[in-house]
Amino acid sequence: MNAHPPTPASPARARPSPETVAAVVRELAATFGNRLVTAQAVREQHASTLTWVPNQPPDAVVFARSTEEVQAAVRICAAHRMPVVAFGTGTSLEGHVNAPYGGVSIDLAEMNRVLAVHAEDLDCVVQPGVTRKALNEHLRDQGLFFPIDPGADASLGGMAATRASGTNAVRYGTMKDNVLALTAVLPNGEVVRTGSRARKSSAGYDLTRLLVGSEGTLGIITELTLRLSGIPEAISAGICPFPTIKAACDAVIMTIQSGIPVARIELLDEVQVAACNAYSKLSLPETPLLLVEFHGSEAGVAEQAERFGEIAAEFGGGPYEWATKAEDRTRLWQARHDVYWAAVALRPGARVIATDVCVPISRLAECVDETKRDIVESGITAPIAGHVGDGNFHTSPLVMMDDPDEIARVTGFIERLVARALAMEGTCTGEHGIGQKKLRFMAIEHGPAALEMMRALKRTLDPDDIMNPGKVVPV
Amino acid sequence: MNAHPPTPASPARARPSPETVAAVVRELAATFGNRLVTAQAVREQHASTLTWVPNQPPDAVVFARSTEEVQAAVRICAAHRMPVVAFGTGTSLEGHVNAPYGGVSIDLAEMNRVLAVHAEDLDCVVQPGVTRKALNEHLRDQGLFFPIDPGADASLGGMAATRASGTNAVRYGTMKDNVLALTAVLPNGEVVRTGSRARKSSAGYDLTRLLVGSEGTLGIITELTLRLSGIPEAISAGICPFPTIKAACDAVIMTIQSGIPVARIELLDEVQVAACNAYSKLSLPETPLLLVEFHGSEAGVAEQAERFGEIAAEFGGGPYEWATKAEDRTRLWQARHDVYWAAVALRPGARVIATDVCVPISRLAECVDETKRDIVESGITAPIAGHVGDGNFHTSPLVMMDDPDEIARVTGFIERLVARALAMEGTCTGEHGIGQKKLRFMAIEHGPAALEMMRALKRTLDPDDIMNPGKVVPV
Repeated sequence: MNAHPPTPASPARARPSPETVAAVVRELAATFGNRLVTAQAVREQHASTLTWVPNQPPDAVVFARSTEEVQAAVRICAAHRMPVVAFGTGTSLEGHVNAPYGGVSIDLAEMNRVLAVHAEDLDCVVQPGVTRKALNEHLRDQGLFFPIDPGADASLGGMAATRASGTNAVRYGTMKDNVLALTAVLPNGEVVRTGSRARKSSAGYDLTRLLVGSEGTLGIITELTLRLSGIPEAISAGICPFPTIKAACDAVIMTIQSGIPVARIELLDEVQVAACNAYSKLSLPETPLLLVEFHGSEAGVAEQAERFGEIAAEFGGGPYEWATKAEDRTRLWQARHDVYWAAVALRPGARVIATDVCVPISRLAECVDETKRDIVESGITAPIAGHVGDGNFHTSPLVMMDDPDEIARVTGFIERLVARALAMEGTCTGEHGIGQKKLRFMAIEHGPAALEMMRALKRTLDPDDIMNPGKVVPV
Repeated sequence: MNAHPPTPASPARARPSPETVAAVVRELAATFGNRLVTAQAVREQHASTLTWVPNQPPDAVVFARSTEEVQAAVRICAAHRMPVVAFGTGTSLEGHVNAPYGGVSIDLAEMNRVLAVHAEDLDCVVQPGVTRKALNEHLRDQGLFFPIDPGADASLGGMAATRASGTNAVRYGTMKDNVLALTAVLPNGEVVRTGSRARKSSAGYDLTRLLVGSEGTLGIITELTLRLSGIPEAISAGICPFPTIKAACDAVIMTIQSGIPVARIELLDEVQVAACNAYSKLSLPETPLLLVEFHGSEAGVAEQAERFGEIAAEFGGGPYEWATKAEDRTRLWQARHDVYWAAVALRPGARVIATDVCVPISRLAECVDETKRDIVESGITAPIAGHVGDGNFHTSPLVMMDDPDEIARVTGFIERLVARALAMEGTCTGEHGIGQKKLRFMAIEHGPAALEMMRALKRTLDPDDIMNPGKVVPV
């Protein structure tokens, strides 16, 4: 049985004809040789595989090794109006890499070299297939790190394309803040270079930020210049249960208002804590839980951890535990590290449907509380974990994919979750992106004028709609 | 005598005919009454007045009081293909507010209300005519501040439009990082709302960042949602002379690499220090000087100031003085506060031509040293002051506007300054923007593909080129 939730489709657009596919494949094969692949298994791997989005494979996959090769592939596809979909590690969650209208997936995993590290400038230049863990491995000896951590070991090109963020964003920002410059292949086959290694610039339109978050619909990123940070001299980490979500959120607000430069501040709800207790054999109190981490000097991180403890106590939090040694920190944060697998173990056989919204932090407690009520009333299982310093939280309904009724209930729940976040002046996604599954919320979130402005940008830069069609901007 | 340096002009574009001007004035008068002004003095005030850019007044000025009024003015102008130029405080430095093809200046100074302050979310909503000082005055009681400080008491709409930054950028970022959402009137008269009050979002193209820095060429900003920061519990400030520019820059690099969260770090060269000594009656050693400021807890800012002192000593800096009391800090930073007037006093009767570039910080010492040699060889007077934490520096040639030879030498000097910054992977402007005077550098900095991409965006959103024509993107 295959009871998928509704997925947007554009009946107006047809897949390329078999003749077109054959012609494109022939031309690509001439350039890419055996790095042009049409085997079904490979094509299926290059489409959505992680969540409940149906797998919509491309017609062919090419494994590119340079900007010039990406350009060659795009030019061949453009000449035939064939869709092109950039592919990094395939860890996006909203159907970003699907090929609903067929086309060619350009796999960038082999473009995995760190081209330069400029330690004095705290920046580096990388190819798009470098993953964040590989980059951090490369940087460690120089005392540097790249702070954006979305959980998955995603490729940096994909992280830029989806405007990823994660646990460190409250202190270090998102991909929007940590990309200095890009090289990209545009839909017309031109190679564009945006930005520079200067930390800031007022020289013209911000093409870098236009490409960051465009999900491969305006260009394919083939090189990135990234901001780096120094590995902090010291790190402290803490964990603190709270009587209610509200109390935990109030402690977060006070922490940030006080100017304590918290590096990570994560919330788990009691359902998630119980799941972690079961999975990781912990004995945390099954109430809302905050996990915090501070980066700085030895004295600084001790002071920050202590001040957070005082704030937590003011809001009824405790017992509060904190540590600076690496093994103690790992032990304290065990629950957070195991969030995903603990959720999976809650309901064997179920799919984890990770979704996210983001609201102003003053509305966070209310949004989470209403969402928890909705979870109960919908009769679904959905732990909540959030990057609460940003007002961003995830809920991960566990769905039996052979139960159409449950799928319908989860679909309705996500609709209400988004409506709730938007009503609170938030956004339908803080970090997962639009892809296919959140396309229908774009008009509601942005309104007709902004949506038409996005459409105009897309039409101008990609008049034939060849780059990742069916994503981000509803036609 | 009027020996201006070359200013770009587009011979292809004519000013509107007298009949068109008369028709537009008539229609605007019907809506704006006596807030539609055509008096020459007022028109001249609404064009470039601060630097050596010739004054090119608009045909009329309207004083708008709401988004709807801006929309009405834009619609009238759009119907007649009449240029519209947004005007805040007129403190931009590259001819941004000039009307080389005539048109209507929309003065936003009366849109000066703070519409909301959300203390828990550290954000606020303002009209574009609110100045940064007025906003900070408004916020002070709540323990909040808006950290971007470009020097002038500019309007926040203008600061967003020019992607302004200033002394605090090394810690707090630029306008790009501190605008959460915008309302703008587009060239077609539509009102667009971009972004939301959520701290982050992955929902579609980043229209906010597209408008920030677009200098009024893609839309007129009529409302801004801004990130705020908590006023730090404690501030420490220090001052330290260095034997060479190189030694000072190396100290800056080490400070930032060490993760010391410096809030401001400013460089004055010995010419600027001498000017400040003379103007402010100080007795600083006439060598390169760093001024630093740290924000945090009492213990934190003391530790940071001390660690900076150790780093400075490593590079031969000293004697190093620092303080935490407000009056002592003001005394230490006196030289920085008086930079502009000290430069003016160096050469009575001269115009101060403020210009800026930005380079990767590892190239800063080399760039400043070469620039200083060029100043000597060019036989001009030009103090240097920089936001060195960002690699951004200003040089301010003092020019007698009745000396064509000197004007030519300064023009040549600025050409070489930009070429030098670009050769070092920098940008032709870190914070002043493009306006008219840096238009000719856009092609050199960005290359044909990126420039064509910018042109495509402009053509799509403003097909009749009515919004601030002749700025940012060369036609």
